[in-house]
Amino acid sequence: MSNPTAAVLVIGDEILSGRTRDSNLHFLAQELARVGIDLQEARVVPDRHATIVAAVRALSEAHDHLFTSGGIGPTHDDITADAVAEAMGVPLGVREDALAVLKTHYDRMGVEMNEARLRMARVPEGAELIENPVSAAPGFSIRNVHVMAGVPRIFEAMVAGLLPRLTGGTPLLSASYRIQRGEGEIAGPLAQLAADYPDLLMGSYPFNDGGVFGANIVIRGPGGARVNEAMTRLAALFPE
Amino acid sequence: MSNPTAAVLVIGDEILSGRTRDSNLHFLAQELARVGIDLQEARVVPDRHATIVAAVRALSEAHDHLFTSGGIGPTHDDITADAVAEAMGVPLGVREDALAVLKTHYDRMGVEMNEARLRMARVPEGAELIENPVSAAPGFSIRNVHVMAGVPRIFEAMVAGLLPRLTGGTPLLSASYRIQRGEGEIAGPLAQLAADYPDLLMGSYPFNDGGVFGANIVIRGPGGARVNEAMTRLAALFPE
Repeated sequence: MSNPTAAVLVIGDEILSGRTRDSNLHFLAQELARVGIDLQEARVVPDRHATIVAAVRALSEAHDHLFTSGGIGPTHDDITADAVAEAMGVPLGVREDALAVLKTHYDRMGVEMNEARLRMARVPEGAELIENPVSAAPGFSIRNVHVMAGVPRIFEAMVAGLLPRLTGGTPLLSASYRIQRGEGEIAGPLAQLAADYPDLLMGSYPFNDGGVFGANIVIRGPGGARVNEAMTRLAALFPE
Repeated sequence: MSNPTAAVLVIGDEILSGRTRDSNLHFLAQELARVGIDLQEARVVPDRHATIVAAVRALSEAHDHLFTSGGIGPTHDDITADAVAEAMGVPLGVREDALAVLKTHYDRMGVEMNEARLRMARVPEGAELIENPVSAAPGFSIRNVHVMAGVPRIFEAMVAGLLPRLTGGTPLLSASYRIQRGEGEIAGPLAQLAADYPDLLMGSYPFNDGGVFGANIVIRGPGGARVNEAMTRLAALFPE
């Protein structure tokens, strides 16, 4: 049996204008090689609706999987969800589960849900959400097209959640915990905790929320009991 | 008059397997922006003859220029010259001027010309050579297709020699502004501003800089006065 094949579509004017250097292609190429998915083509296209639609159609038909990067944020030039929905011939609408994830996140941060942020809850009909442990706004899979954020840290976290689902491997469970202290205070105890749980992945994603410094700590692993145990110890180290 | 358009084709299994991280796309994107050539698409394909032929045909027909990177060395998997000749419908053969350049180089290095090195003197009929000041073996332009080496140092040197030969249009002027607020707050006012300046390109590039969230807003256009005007309004909307 030969390996499944894949293509990558990087979406964003900023890559083609030379303003930003893409790192998601290289990251994903390495990850796909690791899990035995054969990356056969990559394309970079601008934030232009018809171009994205055509590329999504061509690449999703030619390969077992298509992974996209970029264009799912709140601003007017974030048009990937619209283009993917059109390419797959399904309607796009606000999804209750995506909205709930965003609401929980913004409530916790004391930030208002507005029209722009609501855009990020729009998902093509029939899609499955891809978890975003860094900044909540989810990606999604619609059939063989997997749509993820362009910001490298978020892209990488989404890939970590998605790949086990595609390869039939054990899916990683994740839990996150918000700590309102500078990373300098968190780092020591967190490193100790990580050493005690070598089977788990622990990531620290710093934030500055209107002058409040802190970090979201994400713990991932193949077993829910272990993740919960580590998360309980983390919460004891840094009570709310 | 609008700027000439371009595509980039990066050729090489090593990029798609994650073994090598491409840097030529980013370098060329910056250079093209500088000289006013509008890079509209990039593709990465493996060392497979039919795939390269199809990509060269599609991209050279769709754009004013196609730049390729990789696959013009001496080894059996360096098949770019063959594929480009086929795509352009011209024969490929050893060219006397290319051979002379290689002979001079190898004589000076005390290295023997052999069958493998002779491959690098093969050029499609009617092509113009692109100088390689690093390791002699030339690239070439055949009509609107510019074929260059994949090794970054050589690629960059070839680009430096090639670009002045190509016609550049008016370079886009750009200005950027850093806003330390989440994109969700920026999105609404920015969309309004973009609607007021349909002749300009406005992009929002979020960052998380050591816990500080925000976005760099880039405004680009052919006229400095318009860009400045829009930028002044943006700065008024989001004072530092």
